[in-house]
Amino acid sequence: MSARQIRRIRKHGLPPESLVYTGRRSKAPAKLHTLLYDESGFSELPEWQQPRPGSVLWLDIRNLSDTDAIAKAGAAFQIHPLALEDVLNTRQRAKLEEFDNGLFFIVPHLSLNTKTMELVSEQIAIFSGNGFVVSFQEIPDDTFAVLRKRITENVGRIRKKGADFLTYSLLDTIVDGYYEVLDQFEDEMITLEETLHTTGAHNHEKARIFRLKRLVNDFKHRVLPLREAVGKFYRSDGTFVDESNRLYIRDLVDHVAQVMDNLDSERDMLFNMEAYYQAEAANKLNNVMRLLTVISTIFIPLSFIAGVYGMNFENMPELRTQNGYFILLGVMAILMLSMLAIFKARKWI
Amino acid sequence: MSARQIRRIRKHGLPPESLVYTGRRSKAPAKLHTLLYDESGFSELPEWQQPRPGSVLWLDIRNLSDTDAIAKAGAAFQIHPLALEDVLNTRQRAKLEEFDNGLFFIVPHLSLNTKTMELVSEQIAIFSGNGFVVSFQEIPDDTFAVLRKRITENVGRIRKKGADFLTYSLLDTIVDGYYEVLDQFEDEMITLEETLHTTGAHNHEKARIFRLKRLVNDFKHRVLPLREAVGKFYRSDGTFVDESNRLYIRDLVDHVAQVMDNLDSERDMLFNMEAYYQAEAANKLNNVMRLLTVISTIFIPLSFIAGVYGMNFENMPELRTQNGYFILLGVMAILMLSMLAIFKARKWI
Amino acid sequence: MSARQIRRIRKHGLPPESLVYTGRRSKAPAKLHTLLYDESGFSELPEWQQPRPGSVLWLDIRNLSDTDAIAKAGAAFQIHPLALEDVLNTRQRAKLEEFDNGLFFIVPHLSLNTKTMELVSEQIAIFSGNGFVVSFQEIPDDTFAVLRKRITENVGRIRKKGADFLTYSLLDTIVDGYYEVLDQFEDEMITLEETLHTTGAHNHEKARIFRLKRLVNDFKHRVLPLREAVGKFYRSDGTFVDESNRLYIRDLVDHVAQVMDNLDSERDMLFNMEAYYQAEAANKLNNVMRLLTVISTIFIPLSFIAGVYGMNFENMPELRTQNGYFILLGVMAILMLSMLAIFKARKWI
Amino acid sequence: MSARQIRRIRKHGLPPESLVYTGRRSKAPAKLHTLLYDESGFSELPEWQQPRPGSVLWLDIRNLSDTDAIAKAGAAFQIHPLALEDVLNTRQRAKLEEFDNGLFFIVPHLSLNTKTMELVSEQIAIFSGNGFVVSFQEIPDDTFAVLRKRITENVGRIRKKGADFLTYSLLDTIVDGYYEVLDQFEDEMITLEETLHTTGAHNHEKARIFRLKRLVNDFKHRVLPLREAVGKFYRSDGTFVDESNRLYIRDLVDHVAQVMDNLDSERDMLFNMEAYYQAEAANKLNNVMRLLTVISTIFIPLSFIAGVYGMNFENMPELRTQNGYFILLGVMAILMLSMLAIFKARKWI
Amino acid sequence: MSARQIRRIRKHGLPPESLVYTGRRSKAPAKLHTLLYDESGFSELPEWQQPRPGSVLWLDIRNLSDTDAIAKAGAAFQIHPLALEDVLNTRQRAKLEEFDNGLFFIVPHLSLNTKTMELVSEQIAIFSGNGFVVSFQEIPDDTFAVLRKRITENVGRIRKKGADFLTYSLLDTIVDGYYEVLDQFEDEMITLEETLHTTGAHNHEKARIFRLKRLVNDFKHRVLPLREAVGKFYRSDGTFVDESNRLYIRDLVDHVAQVMDNLDSERDMLFNMEAYYQAEAANKLNNVMRLLTVISTIFIPLSFIAGVYGMNFENMPELRTQNGYFILLGVMAILMLSMLAIFKARKWI
Repeated sequence: MSARQIRRIRKHGLPPESLVYTGRRSKAPAKLHTLLYDESGFSELPEWQQPRPGSVLWLDIRNLSDTDAIAKAGAAFQIHPLALEDVLNTRQRAKLEEFDNGLFFIVPHLSLNTKTMELVSEQIAIFSGNGFVVSFQEIPDDTFAVLRKRITENVGRIRKKGADFLTYSLLDTIVDGYYEVLDQFEDEMITLEETLHTTGAHNHEKARIFRLKRLVNDFKHRVLPLREAVGKFYRSDGTFVDESNRLYIRDLVDHVAQVMDNLDSERDMLFNMEAYYQAEAANKLNNVMRLLTVISTIFIPLSFIAGVYGMNFENMPELRTQNGYFILLGVMAILMLSMLAIFKARKWI
Repeated sequence: MSARQIRRIRKHGLPPESLVYTGRRSKAPAKLHTLLYDESGFSELPEWQQPRPGSVLWLDIRNLSDTDAIAKAGAAFQIHPLALEDVLNTRQRAKLEEFDNGLFFIVPHLSLNTKTMELVSEQIAIFSGNGFVVSFQEIPDDTFAVLRKRITENVGRIRKKGADFLTYSLLDTIVDGYYEVLDQFEDEMITLEETLHTTGAHNHEKARIFRLKRLVNDFKHRVLPLREAVGKFYRSDGTFVDESNRLYIRDLVDHVAQVMDNLDSERDMLFNMEAYYQAEAANKLNNVMRLLTVISTIFIPLSFIAGVYGMNFENMPELRTQNGYFILLGVMAILMLSMLAIFKARKWI
Repeated sequence: MSARQIRRIRKHGLPPESLVYTGRRSKAPAKLHTLLYDESGFSELPEWQQPRPGSVLWLDIRNLSDTDAIAKAGAAFQIHPLALEDVLNTRQRAKLEEFDNGLFFIVPHLSLNTKTMELVSEQIAIFSGNGFVVSFQEIPDDTFAVLRKRITENVGRIRKKGADFLTYSLLDTIVDGYYEVLDQFEDEMITLEETLHTTGAHNHEKARIFRLKRLVNDFKHRVLPLREAVGKFYRSDGTFVDESNRLYIRDLVDHVAQVMDNLDSERDMLFNMEAYYQAEAANKLNNVMRLLTVISTIFIPLSFIAGVYGMNFENMPELRTQNGYFILLGVMAILMLSMLAIFKARKWI
Repeated sequence: MSARQIRRIRKHGLPPESLVYTGRRSKAPAKLHTLLYDESGFSELPEWQQPRPGSVLWLDIRNLSDTDAIAKAGAAFQIHPLALEDVLNTRQRAKLEEFDNGLFFIVPHLSLNTKTMELVSEQIAIFSGNGFVVSFQEIPDDTFAVLRKRITENVGRIRKKGADFLTYSLLDTIVDGYYEVLDQFEDEMITLEETLHTTGAHNHEKARIFRLKRLVNDFKHRVLPLREAVGKFYRSDGTFVDESNRLYIRDLVDHVAQVMDNLDSERDMLFNMEAYYQAEAANKLNNVMRLLTVISTIFIPLSFIAGVYGMNFENMPELRTQNGYFILLGVMAILMLSMLAIFKARKWI
Repeated sequence: MSARQIRRIRKHGLPPESLVYTGRRSKAPAKLHTLLYDESGFSELPEWQQPRPGSVLWLDIRNLSDTDAIAKAGAAFQIHPLALEDVLNTRQRAKLEEFDNGLFFIVPHLSLNTKTMELVSEQIAIFSGNGFVVSFQEIPDDTFAVLRKRITENVGRIRKKGADFLTYSLLDTIVDGYYEVLDQFEDEMITLEETLHTTGAHNHEKARIFRLKRLVNDFKHRVLPLREAVGKFYRSDGTFVDESNRLYIRDLVDHVAQVMDNLDSERDMLFNMEAYYQAEAANKLNNVMRLLTVISTIFIPLSFIAGVYGMNFENMPELRTQNGYFILLGVMAILMLSMLAIFKARKWI
C-alpha cells in the first residue's frame, strides 16, 4: 500500500515537497479543534491563534483529505514543507524529526478489526513547538477524546504542565491503544492453544495460526521504528522538553519496550504453536498409516490363503477332507488373533 | 495478562499516575514489617519512622491490594508517583530507574507450579534510598524470610553494611529463586530426554517438549530485561552505592548472566529434542510404511496368481495335471522366500 | 555475474586502476548531456566546461561501453582513478566514498522484468564536487528524464539549490524506483496469497513463492549497503553538503530505511507463505492417505469374507443353506455401514 | 547440575560468601604443590611462603573437597571472600574479575569421555597477584604437569618471565585442551559424514548427529564467556600484566577466537548433516512408497480381472471359448509389461 | 585438521614459541626469491639483504617445510617468534597483528578443486616492515607470479609506491582469487537451479546442494576474520601505511565486504534451494500416493464385487440370470468411469 502510494505521487515528476494526500479520500472538510489552556482554565477557540506564553495551544486537525486546511495550518505554525509532506503521505514509518522550531512525530495508531482480522492503521502526525502542539489525525474519528476530557475536567497534572507534556500524553494515548491490540492477539492465541490441545490440529486452526503470525509480524514492523523515535524524544536536549517531564517520557520509552517484548514473546509462542501443529499433523498421518497397515497386514495374507483354496485345481486333497474348511477357519482365526496381539504389543492399536 | 491489566486502568481515562492495583485482589490489609538495624543490634518497629544515620531501615510491605497503605508509605519515603504506579501495576518488565532520592527496582519473583507446569510470577518492587529500603511484595507470602533471619541472627556481613547491601541481598535472594526454576526445568528435560531415547517419541512426549519450550521462552522474556537493570545497578554512580559493595553487585550481574546462559543452553537442548522428536516420528512412519510395503509386495502378486487359477475357464490345462497344485504351491513358496531374502538384504525387515 | 566480471579484468594481471568496462557491451558511443543552471536560467551545452561559481554543472554520461569518453570526463573533472575504475566495473555494491575533490556514489538502479520475473540492475555512479555533478548511467536509457524536466521547467526548489541538492535529487529518483519494485513484489504477493487461500497449494504456487523469495533476497542484498552509504552522506562534513540541505538527505535516509523495512516485512510474509504451503501440502497428503485408508479398511476385510466363501472345500455347510448368500450380503452391508459410521465419527469422511 | 548445586548452598540461608564446595566430593586432603622459580633456578617448597621480589611463587592446590586448605591459602594470599566462594562453587561460567591485589580467573578444563560421549568439565580457578599465582584444580589429576616440567627443565622463556606469564601459560594449557576436544568432535563428524554418504541415513546415525549437536552446543556455551574473559585480560591495565607479555596474551585471545570459529563451523556442519539426514529419510520414504505403488498399480487391476473370470455366472461366454484363458494370460502380460514400461520411463524403477 | 595439527605440537610440552611446521610436508628446500625495486629499476638478488631507503625489498619464501630457512629469514628481518610460529602453524584464522617493526598478516589463499569439489586452502603469511615485505607461501606454487611480472615490467603504479603498496597488492591478489571461487560456486548453483526446475529434485541434486552448502559455509568461516584484519589495516596509524595509499586499502576493504555479501547471498540462495528441494520431494510423495490411492479406490471395491460373485453359494439367483454377467460388467464400468470422473474433477489425475 505504502509503496504504491508514494510511487503515485513521485512518478508524475512532482518535487519531493509537494502536498499530496496518499490515503483514503473523503470529500468532507477537515475537522479543526483548538484548545487553549493553562493551570487556571481553558477555552475552546473557533479559530486558531498564535500561542501565548504561559498557556498551551492545542490544534487538532482530523481528516487529511482537506489539504488546503493543512497547508494553512502548516504555514501558520511554520511547519517545514518536508514535515507537511510527511503528514499527508500516510503509512510512513514512525519517526521523530527535530526541526528548529519544534519536534515532529509520525506515529501509527493501530487497531484490530476483529471481524476481518486485519490490522487497521491510522497515521497520526504531531508537531510540538514552544507553547503549542498541532496534531493531525488521518480519519475523522477522534483518538484523543479521553485526553481532551482530562484537560477540560482538569484531571491529573496535565493542566499544570506545558506543550511537551501534552505531546507525551498524546503519544501515551496511542501506545495505550497498542496494548488493546496485544490483548486481542493474546485472546486469540489462548483460544487457539486450547483448541489445539483439546480438539486437535485441524485445517481451520492452521489458517488461524498463519493469519495471526502475519498480524503479529505486521504489528511488529510498524511499532519497531517507534522505539527509536521515543528514545530520541527522551534523549532530546532541553529546547522542547522540560527536565521535570523526562521521567514521564522514560515511562513512555518503557511502555514501547514492553510492547516489543510482548510481541517477541507472542511470536515465540506462535512459532511454537506452528511447530506443534506440524508435529500433530505428522502424528495424525502416522495414525492413519498405522490403521491402514494393521488392516492390510491382517487381511491381505488371509485373503491370499482363501484365494489358494479358491483355485480350481482338480487335485487339491485338502478340499476333500471332512473338516478342512473348519480347520482352515481355525488357522485363520489364530493368525488374525496373533497378529492383533503383535500390534497390541507394539502399541499400534 | 499484563496488556489486559494495563489497558483496564487506562481506558477509563485515568491519568498515568493514578494508583490502581492490577493484580490478583484480596481484601486483607497489607502486612507491614519494619526492621531497623546497625552493626550493634536490631529492632522490629510497630510503625515505620524516618531513617536514622548509621543504621538501616527496612520497610517490607506485602499484599498490594491495600493501596492506601502503599500510598501512605510512598508519601512517607517520598517515592515518585510514577514509581508508585509501577509498584501496583504488576507484571511490568524488570527495570531499574534512578530517582533523585533513590533507586527503584521492579523484579519478577518466579517459581514453577510443578502440578500445572505453569510459571508463577510475583512482582517485587524495591525502593532503595539513603539509609532505608522499602520493598513491596505482591502477595502475602514472604520471599525474604531467610534474609530477615540473617539480619536478626547477624549471619554474614549484612549488619555491617548499609542500605545498598540490603538491596543487593534482596535482589540476590530473588535471583537465587531463578536457579530453583532452572533446576526444575533441567529435571524435566533430563527425564524427557531419557524417555525419548528409551521408550521413543510418543504423543505425550511431544506435548511435554512444547510445554517446556513455552515455559523456557516465557522465563527468558521475563528475565532478559533484568540483565540490563542489574548492569545499570553496577554502573550507577556513588550516590546510592558504596564502592566497597561493587564487587557484590558484580557477582549479582554474573549470576543473572549465568541464568541467561543456562536458559540459552536449555533452549538449544529443547530445539534439539524437538528436531529429534520429528526425526523419530519420520522414522516411525518409515517403519510403518516399510511393513505395509513388505506385506503388500509379497502377498499381492501371490494373491494374483491364486486368482488366476481360481478363474472358471473351461480350458485351463494346468488345472487338470496331477501335481499342478503342488507345483504352484512350491513356486509360491519360492517367490515368497526370495522376496523375503531381498527385503532382508535391503535391511527392511 | 559480478564475480565473474571482476575476475575477468584482474586475471590478466592488470593493475587495479585499469579502465575496463565489465558490463553488457554496445558499440554505440556514449551519450553525453551537459546542463548548466542557476536560479535565473539554464543552458544545455554541446561540450562540457569547467563549473562556474554560482551555477551548477551537470554532466550526464550514458552507455559505459565508450571507455574513452569516460576517461576523458574523468580527467576533466579530476575523478580519482580508483573511482573511475569503479564506474566501469559494474555490479559493485552500493557505496559512498569521500575524495578530496568530491563525493563518489555507486548506486544500483533496480527494476523488475515482469515477464521473466528477473531483477534488472543498472549501475549508476555519481561524482559530486563543488559546483558540478557527473553522473554515469550504465545503459543508454535515461533514468533521470523526469528530474531534468524539473530543472528546465523550474519546478520545485532545485534551481535555487546547489550541486549537493542535485546529487540528493538523483539519489532520490533512484530510491523512488525501488518503491516501484516493492510495489510489484507486493502485487505478486497478494495474488499469491489469495490463490493459496482459495484454490489451494499447487505446484505452480510453490514455484512462485520460491522465485519471489529469491527476488526479495536479491533485492535486499543489493539495497543493504546503500543504507550505509546514504547514512554516510547525511553525516558527511560541510565541504560538499550545505547545512540547509541536511533535512532533505535525512528524508532520503528515511526512505532507504523504509525500503529495508518493507523488504523485511515482505520476507517475513514469504516465509510465512512457504510454511503455509508446506502445512497445506502435508494436509493434502493426510487427506489422500485418509481416503486410501477408508477404502482399504472397508473393502479389504469384505473381500476376505467373499474369498472365504469362494473356496472350493466340499464340506462348507453355509454354502448349502437356502438364505446363506442373502444373510452374508446383509452382514457385509452392516459391516460396511458401521465402518462408515466410525469414520464419520472420527471426521475422516 | 550447576543450578542445583548453587541452590543447595543458598537455600539454607547461608550468606553469599560462605565457603561450601559444590562439586564431586572426596575425602582425600587437598594436594598442594609450591614451586618458587626465577631465571637462575627453582625450588619446590614443602610449605607456601610469601612471594619474594624477582621470583615467581606458584601454589597449585588440587581437590577442592578440602575446604580448610583452601580457606587457609585464601587467607595467606589475601584472596577476596567472593573469589574464594567462586573457587568452590564449581561449574560457574568462565570469567576474569579484577581485585585490588590480583586477577581472578575461572576457566573450565574440558575433555570428552569418548566412551559415554559426555563432556567432562573440571573447574579451574587461578588467582594471579604480584609475584605469585595460586591455581585451584577441582580434581586430584594434574592438568599442568607439562607446564611444571617446562619450568623445572627451563624450556622456553617461562623462567625469564613473571607471574603474569605463568598465568598466561596456565590458560594457554587449558585452551590447548579445547583443541583436543574439537579434534575428537571432528573425528566423529568425519566418520559420521562418511557413513551418511555411503551406507545411508539410519536410525543409529540420527542418534549420533543429535548427541554430537548437544555436545557442540554444550561446549560452546561453556567456552563463550571465556572469550570475554581473555579479552579483558588482554585489555587490563599494567598493574598485573607486563607490557612485554601483551603479545602472548593476544595470541591466547586469538586461540579462543579460533576455538569459537571452529565450533561455529562445526555447528553449521551438524545442522547441514541433520538437514541431509531428514532429506535422506524423506527420500527413503519416497522409495518405499514408490515400490508399494508400483506393485499395487500392476497387480491390483490384474487381480480384479482374474476375479472377474472367477465369478460363477452361468452365462459367461468367454469361459467357454477354446483359447480364452490363453488370450487373457496374454492380455495380462501385455498390461503388466506396459505398466512396467511406464514406470521405467518415469524413473520409478 | 587445524585442531589436530595445533594439538600435535603443543601436547609434547613444547613452549608456545617453538617453530614446528604443521602442514603438508615435502623434503624440498624452500624456494626463496628476492626482488629489490624502486621507481627507476629492479634487481633480482641471489641472497636477501637489508632494505635500502628509497627502494622496496620483497623476499618471497615458498614451501614451509624448510623451517631452517624460515628461522633464518625471521632472524634477519627481526620477525617476532610468535609471528614466526604462526607462519608455520598453518590453517590459522586470518588476522593482522601489529608489531613494533611491522605488520603481520595471515591470509588464506583459497581455491576450489572442481574434481573433488573440495576447498583447497593455502596459508600465506606476510610481514610488512619499513622498506621491506617478507611473504611466506605454504606450497611451492607461486600465487604472486602476476604481481611479480607487474613489478618487473613496470605496469601500473606499483614501482612508484612503497612496501605498504606492495603489501596491499599481495592481499589484493589473494582476494581476487576469492572471486574466482565465488564464480565457481555460482556456476554450480546456476546449473543446479536449472536442473531442479527442469528435470526435478532427484537424489543426486540433494547431494550437490548439501555439498555446496558445506563449501559455502567453509569458505565463509575462513574469510570472515579477514574482514576484521583488512579493516584494521585500513585504520592502522601512519607508521607502516602511507596516507596516499589509504584509498587503495579502502578499496580492498570494499572487496572483502563484497565477497562476504556475495557469500551471504549465495547462502540465502542455497537455503532457498534446499527448501525447494524439500517441497519438491513432498510434492513427489503426494503424487505417488495419489496414484496409489486412485488405483486402490477404483479396483479394491470392484474386486470385492467380483469376489462376491465368485462365492460358491448354491442359491445365488443373479448367477443364473441370462444377462447377469453383462449387467454386472456394465455396472462395474459405470462405477469405474464415475470414480475416474471424480478424481479428474479433484485434479488428482
